[in-house]
Amino acid sequence: MFELDPQLAKDTLLVGHFPLCEVRLMNDARFPWLILVPRREAITEIFQLSHSCQEQLCRESSFVASKMMDWLSADKMNIAALGNIVPQLHIHHIARFQQDEAWPAPVWGKGDAVPYQAEEITQVLTQLKQQLADYLQGDDNEITF
Amino acid sequence: MFELDPQLAKDTLLVGHFPLCEVRLMNDARFPWLILVPRREAITEIFQLSHSCQEQLCRESSFVASKMMDWLSADKMNIAALGNIVPQLHIHHIARFQQDEAWPAPVWGKGDAVPYQAEEITQVLTQLKQQLADYLQGDDNEITF
Repeated sequence: MFELDPQLAKDTLLVGHFPLCEVRLMNDARFPWLILVPRREAITEIFQLSHSCQEQLCRESSFVASKMMDWLSADKMNIAALGNIVPQLHIHHIARFQQDEAWPAPVWGKGDAVPYQAEEITQVLTQLKQQLADYLQGDDNEITF
Repeated sequence: MFELDPQLAKDTLLVGHFPLCEVRLMNDARFPWLILVPRREAITEIFQLSHSCQEQLCRESSFVASKMMDWLSADKMNIAALGNIVPQLHIHHIARFQQDEAWPAPVWGKGDAVPYQAEEITQVLTQLKQQLADYLQGDDNEITF
């Protein structure tokens, strides 16, 4: 059974569920940063997913990246599956700007996360759910792919 | 017409051609590091590729990652499309080891590249071509996807 890694659970906020992936927001207000976690057990590499799941991941990833780029008028999307610290497969989607504090370097390891303030969280999550509505499955977390 | 970015050409060595991507070796002997460059013009994001090209990229990426992991007995694969410095779409595939000099951090920005020695290059490229033979298209660079 799929179970979210505790470190990922601690560092991120639930946005909702796509057919394959759980969508989570990195709790770091410095960077617009979504993480897709395929809801499959004991998977650490993309190539370990079935071919149809890899294609679905590709669709969900491109949907998220395209939405973030357009919505935020980002200069670049950074997409990465690293997992050196948390091996459970999760794919980072980070909207980057030439004015952000890490540009042009990658964001990992750059200073400390700045958690969203309590009053921001509801607003940010509501906006994200609106932006991603085409693929989100409402409030349930049924795995449909 | 597809043309490789000059910075990528400078930093990497040609391994060969997959149906969609040019396969290049980062000239940094510290890390086994392959780069896939989809041979499409003016593309900076994965989602800008056609759906069928995205699926083909997914297949070529998983083939490379799986081969590198098995061949090198790597601890983890790091796969990323960043492009903050070189915007032409290119996808990093880096075999990571708990003993490598950047672990567990990502490799970007960690010290300076250590170019392969001249006498190593032929051997490394020959090995890579053998490992990737199933998808390589011989010596020509015809775009078949």
